[in-house]
Amino acid sequence: MKIVKKIDDVRKEIKKAKKEGKTIGFVPTMGALHNGHISLIKTSLSQCNFNVVSIFVNPIQFNDPEDYQRYPRDINRDIELLKKVKVDLVFVPSVEEMYKERADTYVEVTGLSNVLEGKFRPGHFKGVCTVVCKLFNIVQPDRAYFGWKDAQQLIIIRKMVKDLNIPVEIVGCPTIREKDGLAASSRNIFIKEDDREKALSLYKALKKIEDMVLKKGIKDTSILLEEGKSIIVKYPDVELQYLEIVDFEDLSPVRKIEEKVLVLGAIKLPYVRLIDNIIIEV
Amino acid sequence: MKIVKKIDDVRKEIKKAKKEGKTIGFVPTMGALHNGHISLIKTSLSQCNFNVVSIFVNPIQFNDPEDYQRYPRDINRDIELLKKVKVDLVFVPSVEEMYKERADTYVEVTGLSNVLEGKFRPGHFKGVCTVVCKLFNIVQPDRAYFGWKDAQQLIIIRKMVKDLNIPVEIVGCPTIREKDGLAASSRNIFIKEDDREKALSLYKALKKIEDMVLKKGIKDTSILLEEGKSIIVKYPDVELQYLEIVDFEDLSPVRKIEEKVLVLGAIKLPYVRLIDNIIIEV
Repeated sequence: MKIVKKIDDVRKEIKKAKKEGKTIGFVPTMGALHNGHISLIKTSLSQCNFNVVSIFVNPIQFNDPEDYQRYPRDINRDIELLKKVKVDLVFVPSVEEMYKERADTYVEVTGLSNVLEGKFRPGHFKGVCTVVCKLFNIVQPDRAYFGWKDAQQLIIIRKMVKDLNIPVEIVGCPTIREKDGLAASSRNIFIKEDDREKALSLYKALKKIEDMVLKKGIKDTSILLEEGKSIIVKYPDVELQYLEIVDFEDLSPVRKIEEKVLVLGAIKLPYVRLIDNIIIEV
Repeated sequence: MKIVKKIDDVRKEIKKAKKEGKTIGFVPTMGALHNGHISLIKTSLSQCNFNVVSIFVNPIQFNDPEDYQRYPRDINRDIELLKKVKVDLVFVPSVEEMYKERADTYVEVTGLSNVLEGKFRPGHFKGVCTVVCKLFNIVQPDRAYFGWKDAQQLIIIRKMVKDLNIPVEIVGCPTIREKDGLAASSRNIFIKEDDREKALSLYKALKKIEDMVLKKGIKDTSILLEEGKSIIVKYPDVELQYLEIVDFEDLSPVRKIEEKVLVLGAIKLPYVRLIDNIIIEV
């Protein structure tokens, strides 16, 4: 496994791999790797014969500078994990390497970026799209792997790739959960044991909605959301930022469930913000 | 020479050429080809062994819909010209092929896009950057050729390529001029014979400034611009939109010429808008 810090060194390795006719799989991450990342990497390993992982905490996607500062980082542990799963190349650039001098260019998917997460994290998806576009130009992968845990991000990146004709296939992988159902996230390490139940309230609300649709046939989203929200608001120090049922393709709000939908939510404990979602097909 | 209308067909041809180890040269155009384009293409032909030209009048870079409608189009003549110079591939997509369904993704170089031309054509460079980014993803050229006639465009595209790590070399080619000095432009066909002198006023102003710098050693830009402007304002129906002396790298205004500068201007005759520029090195 090679570990490189410079863009030029990535290009060299990729050029060599492409010359050998290899298929390039790519998993972009912000490090603090968990089972969700490992699942993406294993999918990449099963489909590609040259596998690249990047670790880069991208400052321009953090609307809150404090969130950027305290975002978990554990590069040595990450490297050990990646050695075990046997990826070929790890790209660990510095902020200077990625945004040398003044970076003035931004990639933005309008519309989709301003709803849901976008409302609470202005500029977030612009930062995500810009860095992903840069990483795609550096790694030039055949396939890139993203988790459904960040459903809106996945949908926006698919749209960017389509709109800009970027020659990469975006592969979405299912959300990985901890034993009690909490969606795997680098931010979970912040959750205090006493607050576990509060952190799980969002997932419980999602499961409740799923049950009501699949087992009781309730399709009116106002009823479903009311019931879901009631589970979360029981906890006074859990702030429900949003809970919505939207179209699976264009993220527009749905009144009655008739096709594939996404149920997405975000909650904020006093010291950590968590998101989760489920897909419901009727 | 192959002529294709579909993105997938471009990808097929490029894949084949790359497999044969060929170097891809690319000249993106809006058609209505003139000697400026031919010069770009000949430079491409001299440096690359698979040469692609695109012809696409890109609606999203026109801030004025009327300007888009009346932009000169002569595809049959263009194709004949391209056959003569012997390019390998001509890509002539429809608007639908380039912007199918809803295209919501934009690429923007902030800062540089809001000065000079950007002030008079809001959104213009965002449209240019977006389509050029798309075309680069489709053609995946090793080198792409742009004329210094559109100096600000060239500088912005170089910045975009650098900021987004796009793997292409941008080659700038000198402005080609008609016999009387008028910069070659697809819009020149609109100029009435009686208005030729008015159309040339901008070039005369640029040459006057160049003379004052190189022959008389005048370096104070306020004196230079005053003199230059006086040549243009002599014509009552020529609107001078701007005439500026700016830094060659970052387009910031220059007070005293000490390094390489760009002198750029735009004038508007009642029925046609013209731009031109010169580079001065002291």
